[in-house]
Amino acid sequence: MNIPVVEQILFANNTLAEDLRRKLDAAGVFGINVMASPGAGKTTVITGTVERLLNRLKIGYVDGDIATSIDAERIAALDVPVVQINTGGNCHLDANMLAPAVDKLPLDDIDLMIVENVGNLICPANFQLGTHINVLVASVPEGDDKPYKYPTMYRGVDVLILNKVDLLPYIPFDVERFKHGVRVLSPNLKTFEVSSLHGDGMDAWVDWLAEQVAGER
Amino acid sequence: MNIPVVEQILFANNTLAEDLRRKLDAAGVFGINVMASPGAGKTTVITGTVERLLNRLKIGYVDGDIATSIDAERIAALDVPVVQINTGGNCHLDANMLAPAVDKLPLDDIDLMIVENVGNLICPANFQLGTHINVLVASVPEGDDKPYKYPTMYRGVDVLILNKVDLLPYIPFDVERFKHGVRVLSPNLKTFEVSSLHGDGMDAWVDWLAEQVAGER
Repeated sequence: MNIPVVEQILFANNTLAEDLRRKLDAAGVFGINVMASPGAGKTTVITGTVERLLNRLKIGYVDGDIATSIDAERIAALDVPVVQINTGGNCHLDANMLAPAVDKLPLDDIDLMIVENVGNLICPANFQLGTHINVLVASVPEGDDKPYKYPTMYRGVDVLILNKVDLLPYIPFDVERFKHGVRVLSPNLKTFEVSSLHGDGMDAWVDWLAEQVAGER
Repeated sequence: MNIPVVEQILFANNTLAEDLRRKLDAAGVFGINVMASPGAGKTTVITGTVERLLNRLKIGYVDGDIATSIDAERIAALDVPVVQINTGGNCHLDANMLAPAVDKLPLDDIDLMIVENVGNLICPANFQLGTHINVLVASVPEGDDKPYKYPTMYRGVDVLILNKVDLLPYIPFDVERFKHGVRVLSPNLKTFEVSSLHGDGMDAWVDWLAEQVAGER
């Protein structure tokens, strides 16, 4: 694949993403795109987010996965509308895949659309989806070097959730080294430290998110 | 990108991989391709492997990363020949990228070549490198659902190293669910359970690897 082809693909994707954004805005839907490495805890963070917001906001969920609907079933159990996108091996979602999924959601009855991207720290970074914010879930066991090794992903997000902080006592993770790596790439990145498993820090993230949704309307 | 183009790329890659394999065989080099999600502990497993084998085998190391040479520096500190491949954002190594790196290693003075692939559970699975075995490093914090969610990767490897077992007391990881998912995809997959941080289980893996290298010669 040569570079001009890649540029054409990204250009076409951005145009579709802008269309999607207009559609979300017209329906009063705030969209977030949640990205992470496999196993960082995206689905657990999203489950905890949905549980905390269910009585405040109407939520829709889109799950991108290369195979299975394990994640979608976890969220569907919370009784929110769910659409599954199976990427068939593709390592990211793009606006072209998301558009038909969005059409299957009852947009007029949704305040917040949560899109869970494919577990990958590389591919999803290049594809805007038309959502209002890009969220990266990092996790302590991945190591404090990840901002240095995956700069494109860390540079392109609006919010960083550092998950699994409950494991800090058991893992050689230098929080300052991690934060320094993040600051170099994105000095004012909004960051939350949470344990999605035990709930620590989740309220701060969820309250902030609810404010963004309210501010958009 | 349409399917025929992908098939052509994979066919061309496989031909190059076969050339590389012949070159390694001619030089008496046993090659392993180590793959994993970001942060599963590939580099720590490799460091522990090199340390344990340094007085038994002559080792060369090739590091694939989208940016930085952090991993390569950790291994170079062990005084083995190291070649860095920067993929420039690409989410996997392929035989075409590996070939010039192999040419920079002193093959006649090497028994074991360790290739560390880009941190990714999706892209590297489709690209053979010409190495003798494909090794997947999984880790407990990633979760017990990963074989179900990334079947292509789990199906395509010869050895599975389940790392960070020292974290089992702190994480809801169902070892039986994980193993069942692996068995369905690959019933006889050689599996080692290790803590690369504390060393548990590493000797069994390293002894097995040394046997494979000896068997090849």
